[in-house]
Parts: sequence; C-alpha cells; structure tokens
Amino acid sequence: MIVTVTLNPALDLTYAVDALVPHGTHRVATVAERPGGKGLNVARVLHTLGEPVLATGLLGGATGTRVAALLYDEGVPAGFVRIGGETRRTVAVVDGRDATGFWEPGPTVTPAEWALFLDEFHELLGPATVVTLSGSLPPGVPLDAYATLVALAKQAGVPAVLDTSGPALRHGLLAAPALAKPNADELAALAPASRPAPAPPGGPATGSIVAAVRGLAAGPVVVSRGAGGLLAVTPDEVWECAPPVPLDGNPTGAGDACVAALSRGLRDRTPWPELLADAVALSAAAVAAPVAGAFDPDVYRQTRTTARAVIPETAPGGPRARTHR
Amino acid sequence: MIVTVTLNPALDLTYAVDALVPHGTHRVATVAERPGGKGLNVARVLHTLGEPVLATGLLGGATGTRVAALLYDEGVPAGFVRIGGETRRTVAVVDGRDATGFWEPGPTVTPAEWALFLDEFHELLGPATVVTLSGSLPPGVPLDAYATLVALAKQAGVPAVLDTSGPALRHGLLAAPALAKPNADELAALAPASRPAPAPPGGPATGSIVAAVRGLAAGPVVVSRGAGGLLAVTPDEVWECAPPVPLDGNPTGAGDACVAALSRGLRDRTPWPELLADAVALSAAAVAAPVAGAFDPDVYRQTRTTARAVIPETAPGGPRARTHR
Repeated sequence: MIVTVTLNPALDLTYAVDALVPHGTHRVATVAERPGGKGLNVARVLHTLGEPVLATGLLGGATGTRVAALLYDEGVPAGFVRIGGETRRTVAVVDGRDATGFWEPGPTVTPAEWALFLDEFHELLGPATVVTLSGSLPPGVPLDAYATLVALAKQAGVPAVLDTSGPALRHGLLAAPALAKPNADELAALAPASRPAPAPPGGPATGSIVAAVRGLAAGPVVVSRGAGGLLAVTPDEVWECAPPVPLDGNPTGAGDACVAALSRGLRDRTPWPELLADAVALSAAAVAAPVAGAFDPDVYRQTRTTARAVIPETAPGGPRARTHR
Repeated sequence: MIVTVTLNPALDLTYAVDALVPHGTHRVATVAERPGGKGLNVARVLHTLGEPVLATGLLGGATGTRVAALLYDEGVPAGFVRIGGETRRTVAVVDGRDATGFWEPGPTVTPAEWALFLDEFHELLGPATVVTLSGSLPPGVPLDAYATLVALAKQAGVPAVLDTSGPALRHGLLAAPALAKPNADELAALAPASRPAPAPPGGPATGSIVAAVRGLAAGPVVVSRGAGGLLAVTPDEVWECAPPVPLDGNPTGAGDACVAALSRGLRDRTPWPELLADAVALSAAAVAAPVAGAFDPDVYRQTRTTARAVIPETAPGGPRARTHR
C-alpha cells in the first residue's frame, strides 16, 4: 500500500456568501466541510483510483475527530496518531467573484507526540510500497522532520515522495528522497536564481530550473509549472510534459493529484515519459474537478491518451534519447 | 437553579489577522475558541456570579463536542440534548480596525430531536427557579418553539425570560413570558412605528417604545438601548436606568449579562429600580470585558452603586411613584 503522511491536516470549510464586505457581518448560506491537507488529497485520489492506500499523520481534538469521520465517510483507510492539540481549520469564503482564505496555524506538537508518530511511521514502513510526505509542518515538529522520515523510509527500502516548501523542503532534500515535487514558486523560493527577472511567459526558463534543481537535490525532482506542465529533472536526464489543451478550473489539489500519480508510478517503476504523461493527465483531471482531492475521470482518460513527454530543446546538453527508469 | 436554554449554540472562533484583504489568503496569527450562543453567555455570567445554573439546549457533531468540552473547562454545569447535525461555528476575523463576521446557519433539527428536547426541558423544570430562552432557532425547530417552552414553564410555575428576535420573538410574546428582553432594534423590527424617522439621539423616543411594547406584549418587557440603558415597560409602569458614565468596549454579550441579572432578580423578586440598576451594572461590566460571557467585576461593583432607575418624564402618563412587583 501507499502510505500518505499529513503532519498538518485540516478541516477545510467553504462558506458561500453573497458578497464579502470587510468589517460586515455575513450570514453564511451554505457550509461545505471536507478533510483538508495535501496528503489527504493524495490519499483520496489514490483511493478513487482503486489503489491500496493508508492515510496517516497527526490529528487532535474535536476538529481532528471530524476530519477522521469525514475520511471514514469517504472510505479512505486511515490510521492517525492522536495529539493533544486541536487540528487546524481552513476557512474559504466564496462570493460571486473569488475566494478569501483564512488558514489557522495548526496545533503545537509535543516531542512525545512526535516520537509516537515516528514509532507509528516505522511500523507502517513494513507493508508500505511508497510513502508520500506532503504539506507544511505544524509548530513543534522539527524542521528536519521530513529528512528523518526520508531516512527511515530509505533504511526500510521504501521510496519516499516529498511535496513541501520552504525550510521543510530544503532540509528534506538533504536526505535525498526518491522523488521531490516542488512547484516552480517553491523551487524559486529556495533558489532565487531559478526565476530570472522578467520571467518569460509560462514561468522560469527550463534551463534555470534544471540548474536550480541540480544545485539543490541529489536525486530526481519533478517541478510543476501550472499550465506549463511538469518538468522532470534527474542527475542526467530532463523530461517535460504539458497538458495538450489549456485548463480552466480549480487548481487547488492539482499538485496532490500529481503526487498521487507519481507515487503510483514510482511503485510500478513506470518510465519517465509515461509517468509524466500520467501525472499531467491526473493533474488536469483534478483542475477540472470542483474540489481538491477529486478528479474528473473523463478528463483523466482523455488527457492520458494525448499528453506526450518530450526532452526539451532548451535543456542543458540538449535532447537526449534515453528513457531509462 | 437557573436553567439557560440555547437551541442554536455555536463554537465561536476569533481569527487575528494583520489586515483583511478581500479575495486574498490570510495566515491566521492566533485562534481563540469559545463556547458561543447567547444562552451560554448567560450561563457563564451566572456561573461566575456564583449562582446555581444549568446550561441546556441542542449540541451535535464534533463541533458540539468541542463546545461541551469548553463549557466543562470553564466549570459551567451543562446538560445538552445531542442531535445528529453539526453545531454551527461563527468566525470573527479581527484586524487592526474591526471585526468581519461569518455566521453558519446551524444544523437542521429533526422533529424527533425536538421532541426529545421537550422531554428534557420538562424534566429540568422540576429543579428550575427561572428559565432563560435566548437566541435564534436552528432550522427544523418550529417558529413557535419559545411559545411552547414558555407555556410548559408556566404550567410548572417557573418564570421564563425570553431574549430573541424576529418571528421567534413575535410568537414567543404571544405566550406571555414572565419577562422579555428585546433590544430597541429587535423591537422596532416587530413594531416599526416604535422607531420614528429621524430617531432622536439615544434611539427611539421612550413614548414610542412604551406604545410598541404594550401593543405587542401582555407582560413586562425590558428594552435594551445600548448606551441609552434599559427601559422596563409593564402594563402599568415604566422605569428606565442608564449607565452613569459612557461605556467604551465590546458590546457583544452585554445583552446576555443583562438577561443573567434579570433572571436572578426575577427569582429573587427584586423590585424594578434595584433590578434595572443591577442589570445596567452587569451589562456595563460585560462591555468592559474583552469577550462575550465575561464581565469586569470592578466595573460591576462600581456601576451597581451609582446606577439609579427613574420613572421617565416622557413616559405616557408621566412619572408615578409606585415601585411594586
């Protein structure tokens, strides 16, 4: 099974209001509650694909109980470590124009709770085929938490996919995960040179991303570039794959669908071109779905047959013919 | 004991942000969670005063569990009927300037759950000295719910204090509660003639409020007028009492502190002048406290010794000397 780790999950609330009026009082017309957090979206996508999956991480308080209940309702297998603090909420207030977001910081995790999670994670590595490590770290968890988890997974021979940002990403990369999936902005935050000013249409140049990745990571990295698609950079290869048609929809959760596809492909040792095409298709299908953690199966099937991975002309060293993995 | 009924309680969340940016994403710096709903504030104030109190009403789901846990932490005795729906949340986003509020509508209550509550309420009337009925009705509860509860209380010889608005207030008044406490706006919504245009400073004229009350209610009504203080209107008396010094602070919960004072005074058969002065003082002390359900004991003590109830010159029929009850 694929084990998805979410250390800072959330209860995602979406409030529909007529119009957001700063410093006014709003009667919320409808409330949507969903289990939130990037790793939970990965688990939900994999579960919908019929892949054996287990969602783990940290949950606490009444909000944590609610998240667990919502996952249970969706049939997603889950085994979380309980903590004393309250799992955070996110509130998205949606009016006719756009969403206004409020993100709680998350509970403070004690050293004893973190040690308990490490024990649990160690146990889960037995049956795991791949682990995914997604999202932010709650207060109290060490900054090198993902490096620790990557190292434990390596000892157990289980490949780890890392999708986070900031210091958690920088520390995690030092442990050389089997795969990392930052988006272009998250990469640029760690290696500002990867974003030249002014950026060309479609984001930073492929060459500068490749250079940034190779300066930061010893292993393969897939960089997501929104509508620009995915760029896979390994120590000696570069592949890119973009959606064949422009996408319109809800980009939240597209990166998590991408991680779902990549983790499954890593387990199956899928070659880079097919792997990237599948990840692009599942990401596009997630954009086409109204909520994070879901995807549009028609868009998935369609895009999967049309997306093609290529070796970019502009990659350092130019196109090469190898398609290993 | 005083039984406080809250049919639509809430988990009140206060989010501190730097500045509210419509359609932006906000990292919430701090989150405050409190048990919310007008009747819970009444219970918390009475409990802090050392009065025997029991908070009852409807609670459901993980949010309801959280509200019960927060009440337990504060030591407030509570016995709520569990429902299947999720208790609502309110979110107040506070930036440097003011608060922006989002109010969830509340769970839908089934007829079976409402019947269960009526049984529970009937049981609680045995030991009750006074009942307070505060706040909005959740979806599914009949519009004449408060009329039903007032009638049950009457049969048991227990005085009921009603503090609600709109149709719930209109229906409730028909059952002639021992006391009703609308604010001037809530009264004006039922009897628009009580708010002349333009309103004089301090709100509608005393005479028009008295006329409105006597047109709507057969029993005594205390109308709260913010800084203008309280106006008590009985079928044959009028009393008013205003805070001796202008108040600056948080008016949320001041009405609930007022109800707490009135319900205690009703139990003790306190004469109108002392009753109004006590209610004005406790309301002022609530304004001086940063959060609803709390009060500043120094302001309470001070205001209690200085507030004086008078028979207003402008009352229909002019000043009269009686101080009965």
